[in-house]
Amino acid sequence: MTKPVIARPIIALTTDFGLSDHFVGVMKGVILGIQPAAQLIDISHGVQPYDIADGAFTIAQAYRYFPKKTIHVVVVDPGVGSARRPLLAEMAGQYFVAPDNGVLSMILAREPTARVRHITNERYFLHPVSRTFHGRDVFSPVAAHLAAGVTPAQFGTRIEDHIRATFDEPTLTGKHTWTGAILKADHFGNLATNFHVDQFPSVRTHAFALKVGLQSVTRLALTFSECAAGELFVVVGSSGYIEVAASEGSAAQALGCGPGSPVELTIY
Amino acid sequence: MTKPVIARPIIALTTDFGLSDHFVGVMKGVILGIQPAAQLIDISHGVQPYDIADGAFTIAQAYRYFPKKTIHVVVVDPGVGSARRPLLAEMAGQYFVAPDNGVLSMILAREPTARVRHITNERYFLHPVSRTFHGRDVFSPVAAHLAAGVTPAQFGTRIEDHIRATFDEPTLTGKHTWTGAILKADHFGNLATNFHVDQFPSVRTHAFALKVGLQSVTRLALTFSECAAGELFVVVGSSGYIEVAASEGSAAQALGCGPGSPVELTIY
Amino acid sequence: MTKPVIARPIIALTTDFGLSDHFVGVMKGVILGIQPAAQLIDISHGVQPYDIADGAFTIAQAYRYFPKKTIHVVVVDPGVGSARRPLLAEMAGQYFVAPDNGVLSMILAREPTARVRHITNERYFLHPVSRTFHGRDVFSPVAAHLAAGVTPAQFGTRIEDHIRATFDEPTLTGKHTWTGAILKADHFGNLATNFHVDQFPSVRTHAFALKVGLQSVTRLALTFSECAAGELFVVVGSSGYIEVAASEGSAAQALGCGPGSPVELTIY
Repeated sequence: MTKPVIARPIIALTTDFGLSDHFVGVMKGVILGIQPAAQLIDISHGVQPYDIADGAFTIAQAYRYFPKKTIHVVVVDPGVGSARRPLLAEMAGQYFVAPDNGVLSMILAREPTARVRHITNERYFLHPVSRTFHGRDVFSPVAAHLAAGVTPAQFGTRIEDHIRATFDEPTLTGKHTWTGAILKADHFGNLATNFHVDQFPSVRTHAFALKVGLQSVTRLALTFSECAAGELFVVVGSSGYIEVAASEGSAAQALGCGPGSPVELTIY
Repeated sequence: MTKPVIARPIIALTTDFGLSDHFVGVMKGVILGIQPAAQLIDISHGVQPYDIADGAFTIAQAYRYFPKKTIHVVVVDPGVGSARRPLLAEMAGQYFVAPDNGVLSMILAREPTARVRHITNERYFLHPVSRTFHGRDVFSPVAAHLAAGVTPAQFGTRIEDHIRATFDEPTLTGKHTWTGAILKADHFGNLATNFHVDQFPSVRTHAFALKVGLQSVTRLALTFSECAAGELFVVVGSSGYIEVAASEGSAAQALGCGPGSPVELTIY
Repeated sequence: MTKPVIARPIIALTTDFGLSDHFVGVMKGVILGIQPAAQLIDISHGVQPYDIADGAFTIAQAYRYFPKKTIHVVVVDPGVGSARRPLLAEMAGQYFVAPDNGVLSMILAREPTARVRHITNERYFLHPVSRTFHGRDVFSPVAAHLAAGVTPAQFGTRIEDHIRATFDEPTLTGKHTWTGAILKADHFGNLATNFHVDQFPSVRTHAFALKVGLQSVTRLALTFSECAAGELFVVVGSSGYIEVAASEGSAAQALGCGPGSPVELTIY
């Protein structure tokens, strides 16, 4: 009833737990107690606290770069201990263990063949199960048992009614104008908008104006270094989102903008 | 004279070194140079600088979740280079390498069968031994040699007079009233008090008032999500300590409190 | 044409990417997709953004403690996407993959037998190669292929004209007086100067005055704990640089100084 075990199964962690407490360390201890061969990888523990959209964005940018069979543990879980369900999703040849609160939505939207299960088999939980730390008591042990050879079906039955959160999409608000929003301010202060270059390829070929904060940015750069220090410009980010950046500086700081700030794109 | 070697011995690190410098990386390099098979795990490097009590709390919350034979390196070491002794403790089936300054006290208090040694065998140190970075020169190489099969007795003889620090315990100050303190503000701003639910189980069944900052908190919640956004409440944390929390917000910020702040609990 | 493969090759990462985004996780996913046996180690992702000197200092303090054959990926890369070259350097028995912008200079200065190559073989890149994230598309896959047995020569030909940045060196400005600078403020607020004890051994035996901020520090301590709390003193740091420290406090905060601040040393 068990599937063949991978030599060193990868378990990748994405949480909003930060790094100053014992939380992440405890999750790793629990996993290694069940599957000592697990190869533990941190994607990020710096998701904004309780911010499901930020967690959804973070894991959606990262998962495609991981090998098949990777087991992702995604814990951004403001509803921990409530009736929200724990999920095990199989998609893109990988596994995702996460709360049913929309944190996997950006991936689910891209992976139509996803198979999602409601984890109900408490045999694979750490007992007693707390009401406040399912990262330790539910998600980590489930991931470790999966890595140890337990099949997805043993954790629970398939469901179709998991939460499919939709995140802000740009809206057409004029003949050539769309209103959108900042999705993320990264470590460098670059501001990723929710305009993806696949949907707005003409920014590469046409004149445009991107209004953000009190500024209108009209320059497209190919690299971060081609503009004068401090100059604001638009760049197609490494994930394909159109970003506002400041050469060797922080656009977030220069503009006073962050996640949720509105932007308006006009393409001429 | 060597014990059987574990396939991939776990070495778990807990320090106040932060993550912006080369310190933690250097410790890992030293360990892998001695025992390349070591599986290195970070518990936290965000212990408050020089704060032995915070380090003691962090490792005490984490160690029970690690497998037998795990080797913990705990370096919160304001007295580095002075006469304070390096210790190797065997307790709970695991190993702990740390300075003799009380940082292991919360574990020692729970593990009466602990065996503690004064590490004196300089053969297992990195030479020349600096006066300022024993994480690199003493604790990491000792942990790595232990992981490579050196027996505890080879590092030094047993002692009984290691430091047993006691941390603030609640004091009875009225018929039904105890004065205590905040032990820790976590990443979410939840405030863990030094009231443990095993000692104060009646908070689960009786009316109470917990005075903290300028507020009196009287509501017990089972989960973080059952209260209105911003509301202050008491919750039994995942380690059993009674915590003050704010729904989807920071109690630490709302109350202006942090480690050391006094609290007063009255149970009616 | 491939060299013998090491059982668990170490790949150590040093970047300015921070830990709040998906960037570091993505690099690890890319590496494990190519070489699943890689042992991934974080040296630091807290190099100051775009700060080549800080990156050069960080990796130069760390590399000597890593085993032979370690593959270092060093990404502090303000010029990403421009004409700056990607380098593969063999020195000190280890490998370094990094942009040609001076970030390896402090190591190159110490390792005269270094062999440096210009990485040109795009077969080992992740395609399509972005203009903004060569950590993902160039440096990580090259490191992983190297760890998988590709020989250095297969990545590109040797060059001699790579950038050799020089960092501030103390200047003699009086009979017994040198002007220097702060190189680094560490996590504890200790200020490392660019005076190295190998060049200024007489601080250990002679009276001196180190002017920094508005203070003149004249006391040499052997350990951090021998001075009164808050007292400023000079100590020889674990890397050999002369540091200004404050007992159980932050010298950086007390003095209002940081990287680049001038210092003046007079030895009597």
